[in-house]
Parts: sequence; structure tokens; C-alpha cells
Amino acid sequence: MSLRTVASKFVELCRQGKNFDVMHTLYASNIVSVEGDGKETVGQGPVIKKSEDWVADKIFHGETVAGPFFNGETPDQFAVYFTLDVTPKSTGRRLTLEEVGVYTVKNDKITREQFFYDGDH
Amino acid sequence: MSLRTVASKFVELCRQGKNFDVMHTLYASNIVSVEGDGKETVGQGPVIKKSEDWVADKIFHGETVAGPFFNGETPDQFAVYFTLDVTPKSTGRRLTLEEVGVYTVKNDKITREQFFYDGDH
Repeated sequence: MSLRTVASKFVELCRQGKNFDVMHTLYASNIVSVEGDGKETVGQGPVIKKSEDWVADKIFHGETVAGPFFNGETPDQFAVYFTLDVTPKSTGRRLTLEEVGVYTVKNDKITREQFFYDGDH
Repeated sequence: MSLRTVASKFVELCRQGKNFDVMHTLYASNIVSVEGDGKETVGQGPVIKKSEDWVADKIFHGETVAGPFFNGETPDQFAVYFTLDVTPKSTGRRLTLEEVGVYTVKNDKITREQFFYDGDH
């Protein structure tokens, strides 16, 4: 698959709400996931676990994904812009989270994801 | 100024439609601007000229800017997501362009901008 094929599949699955299918099928076994505070999680299993923990505290109302977007100088990367409409169970206050994700693809798998956002997520 | 101060000023000026004020006040003299196809333009003057040329062919209806967004692993960078509502004079067809911009800040000036998008812009 080309970068564009992987990126299109990524966005298509996210738009269907199949974010965990993305992680199970497109993430490399040694993926590095970098949160907004710079904290790294390494490995497909731990990264999926991180998302499971995040989801466990949320009521999920919806998600939008803009992209994928590309830049020729980093031809192994694509970027997307997410909005996440959620209610954290801990607060009960519904809110829209926004973030930019930059994904690196090698051998048809996502080997790195770096999230840019503001505040807690 | 901190990265956050520069990023907030950037977004505030863009939301006021003052994109050229951004370039005149926040761009470093040796800024490198990287378009979606990977093409680099170097220097504040040439980068402003590139934008002037881009604008000259457009009827501009509006712009949204989401962000700024941050990632602790690259503490000199911020990201934004733009939508640009324009009609290219060459086609007369109104359209919404989307892009992610990743900006690098050094000594309170933007030294690099890298745009991710899809298709012609």
C-alpha cells in the first residue's frame, strides 16, 4: 500500500467509529505514541491499552476527522485534525476536544503518532 | 515571549484576517516555508511574496483557525488547522481548502512553517 492508501484507510475507519480497528490493523508492533505532554508509549499492545483506558472514562457522542493531509518533504507522514465530542464520566461535563495527529508510516504500518493539543485530554 | 505567547498571537491575528501582519511581525528573516508538495521558500520577503501571489488569484470569503495545539516532545512547535473559504479567480468556483500547519519558533520568531494538505492549494 502507498502512504495515501494507508492514510485513506485510517480516515475511513475513524469515520466509521472503528478507531480500535485502526490500531489492530494499521499500527506496527513497535509503534511509538506521543501524547501532547510528550509522554511516549511504545508497542501496539500498550498503545491500545492506553486508548482503552482513555475510552473507559468517556461517554462518546461523536468524532470528526479532517484529512488526510500530506507534505512532500516528509513523504512518510500524514496529518489529520480530530474533534472528539465526549463527556468524561468523572465530570459529567460534555465537551469537544480537538487535536492534530501526525502519523508516520513505514512498510504499510503506522510506526509513530504524535498528537498536538491544548490542555488535558 | 514563550512559544504559547507567539502561538496565541499568531492565531489571534489570523482570526482577525491579519495574516500578513503575522508574516511581517512574527516571521524570522530566514524563515523556511514548506508547501504541501515539499517545495521550500526561504526568507521572509520571498515567503510574503508567495502569499501575495496566492492571494492575488483569490476572492477571499473567510478563514477559520483551530488551535494552537502543542506537543511536549517538540517544545518549539505548535500546530493549527485552517479552513480557507475562497473562490479562485481563474475558475470562479468557490471551495473550502483545508490544511494543517506546523510552525517552529526560535527566539520568539517563526523560523519554519510546514503545510500538510491534499491536492492543489
